[in-house]
Amino acid sequence: MTFPWPEPGTPLTDVPTPMPVIDEDRLAANIVRAQDYMTTRGLAFRPHIKTHKILSVAAAQVAAGAVGVNCQKLTEAEVFADGGFDDILITYNILGAAKLARLAALNARVPRLTVCADSEMTVDGYAATFAADAPLTVLVECDTGAGRCGVQTPEAALALALRIATAPGLRFGGLLTYPATGGAAQVEAFLQSAMALLAGQGLDCPVRSNGGSPDLQKAHLVPSATEHRAGTYVYNDRSMVRAGECGWQDLAMHVLATVVSRPTPTRAVLDSGSKALTADLLGFPDHGEIEELPGARIVSLSEEHAVVDLSACAGPLPVVGDRVRVIPNHTCVVSNLFDRMVFHRGGLVSRVEPVAARGTVW
Amino acid sequence: MTFPWPEPGTPLTDVPTPMPVIDEDRLAANIVRAQDYMTTRGLAFRPHIKTHKILSVAAAQVAAGAVGVNCQKLTEAEVFADGGFDDILITYNILGAAKLARLAALNARVPRLTVCADSEMTVDGYAATFAADAPLTVLVECDTGAGRCGVQTPEAALALALRIATAPGLRFGGLLTYPATGGAAQVEAFLQSAMALLAGQGLDCPVRSNGGSPDLQKAHLVPSATEHRAGTYVYNDRSMVRAGECGWQDLAMHVLATVVSRPTPTRAVLDSGSKALTADLLGFPDHGEIEELPGARIVSLSEEHAVVDLSACAGPLPVVGDRVRVIPNHTCVVSNLFDRMVFHRGGLVSRVEPVAARGTVW
Repeated sequence: MTFPWPEPGTPLTDVPTPMPVIDEDRLAANIVRAQDYMTTRGLAFRPHIKTHKILSVAAAQVAAGAVGVNCQKLTEAEVFADGGFDDILITYNILGAAKLARLAALNARVPRLTVCADSEMTVDGYAATFAADAPLTVLVECDTGAGRCGVQTPEAALALALRIATAPGLRFGGLLTYPATGGAAQVEAFLQSAMALLAGQGLDCPVRSNGGSPDLQKAHLVPSATEHRAGTYVYNDRSMVRAGECGWQDLAMHVLATVVSRPTPTRAVLDSGSKALTADLLGFPDHGEIEELPGARIVSLSEEHAVVDLSACAGPLPVVGDRVRVIPNHTCVVSNLFDRMVFHRGGLVSRVEPVAARGTVW
Repeated sequence: MTFPWPEPGTPLTDVPTPMPVIDEDRLAANIVRAQDYMTTRGLAFRPHIKTHKILSVAAAQVAAGAVGVNCQKLTEAEVFADGGFDDILITYNILGAAKLARLAALNARVPRLTVCADSEMTVDGYAATFAADAPLTVLVECDTGAGRCGVQTPEAALALALRIATAPGLRFGGLLTYPATGGAAQVEAFLQSAMALLAGQGLDCPVRSNGGSPDLQKAHLVPSATEHRAGTYVYNDRSMVRAGECGWQDLAMHVLATVVSRPTPTRAVLDSGSKALTADLLGFPDHGEIEELPGARIVSLSEEHAVVDLSACAGPLPVVGDRVRVIPNHTCVVSNLFDRMVFHRGGLVSRVEPVAARGTVW
């Protein structure tokens, strides 16, 4: 069988649903706006490719001025290395003989490859794999309040940095953090304290990498950072509107959906289930907004159905066969469900790009 | 790049993580147990392929005695028609000229193809597409309490059945429902009432198709049903244990994961994020169980990380690099994230199968 990907030139009204589609002009504007923000403030910008996983979108980000790309997983980095990207940061602890062997092969072909570590076990794995003739650059990941990975104190960051710096095959590259729930002040305080400790030991700390799309326009509030990483900003989504990082007019991704059932006066069912939107709530009480149906709520998802409560819907109610545009809670996970992504401009499909790194969780 | 799919014979301990893996013996036992249940009770069994999307697994289900397969979407059905399946039920309203044209092509090559409808719009689309020389069989979908799709009353079922029966290119095939939250009695009452109305109009109603894995072992409580559809039972998951449909020893899918960080004494981080487990909670307060860590809770997922709270964990705490087995809340959505599925027996990989219908949401 041939999957029904639309050809360029197809009107959006003929694109099969459910289908995420990307507005070319909004995408381009989002890339420029974020890059300008960083450039103006003297911050290096390193887009996270997890949001789109598409080579040409990353190329546009680099062409706009990004220093390189951020990958979350080794296999993502391999796809982007194959695509010619020469500055790749993998923000992950890479563990185990098989992955370390792949990491060594990747380091041999990517001019500027950096990884991170937040434990002695991770550093020791790197140290046992890499030698001085082809060293690996390692950042120490710091938990500045987000409560995920990362060393817990500046003192622990120093200890891990020393362990990296004394390994013949490793280079200490600096510090990395994911944003604090406590805000920029907490990130800045951690970085300043760790940098002072490192300086006290004569350790250079060239990179201080901060991150997150929801904090993108607060990046300048962390003056100790040298670079910022962000992914979601490129498409934007409902969570980014909530964060105040964009307006509805900046949403580059919509999921086209069709009303497939109207069982009751207040219920509609769309064909965009959790295999199109994912079940990611990201703190919302429901599963996205429907542009054409203000007040309607996507109250539940099954795999191929979205149940919509119309009881508070303002305006004309939909009929079976109507097409709508869903604003997803979280674009990054939607991208990961589709083998290709459809782009459009002026109501017509402009291109269909392979989501090259889809499924790269290793 | 080459994705790191393991070769047959690879020890499970060498399979890269995160990776869902399927226990061959449990899979085979699940297939036989459900089929035996249905056969014993005189019910036709029609497994839903959405759970696995793998041709050889569906072939095993049919070899065990299933009458055919159930697909949710047209493109799923196309993949399974390509795979040689000759009795396919698509439990979906199929709308729009492009999909109806594909449906006609599918109907021309699948000996027994059936679809469903719950609205006049849907029936009229079928009626305009199919002619008497190659008719389409249509079931009327009934909402017997689940609150998703389906006509709301037996009277509405009759009206739609008459609309189907009077269209030259359509055959009324019977009634279809997804299980009632109100239970078997509600399903049975709806079916009995609708069947009486249909009989009163002289309409034959050969198929009464009931469904759902969580209700699989209650299928006999709906005596008016002629067949049962179920998907999840083939792998089982945490939700099926909760439903009392299986025990922990019947879980055929685990997601292998690695502890990649131990930032604090009570926190571990796994490499199985929402791009491996999905964010489907299915009513649970957390994101799966960890076999090796009883009492541990997967409290949050980001795309490539699972944050685990160890504060109530009984037994030895994990260290960085440890491998664990996660029991997912919902197997069907995990399958849909991976291009291939790894099977194992006796601690070794037995085969790696393409998830042929992955991404078939149209």
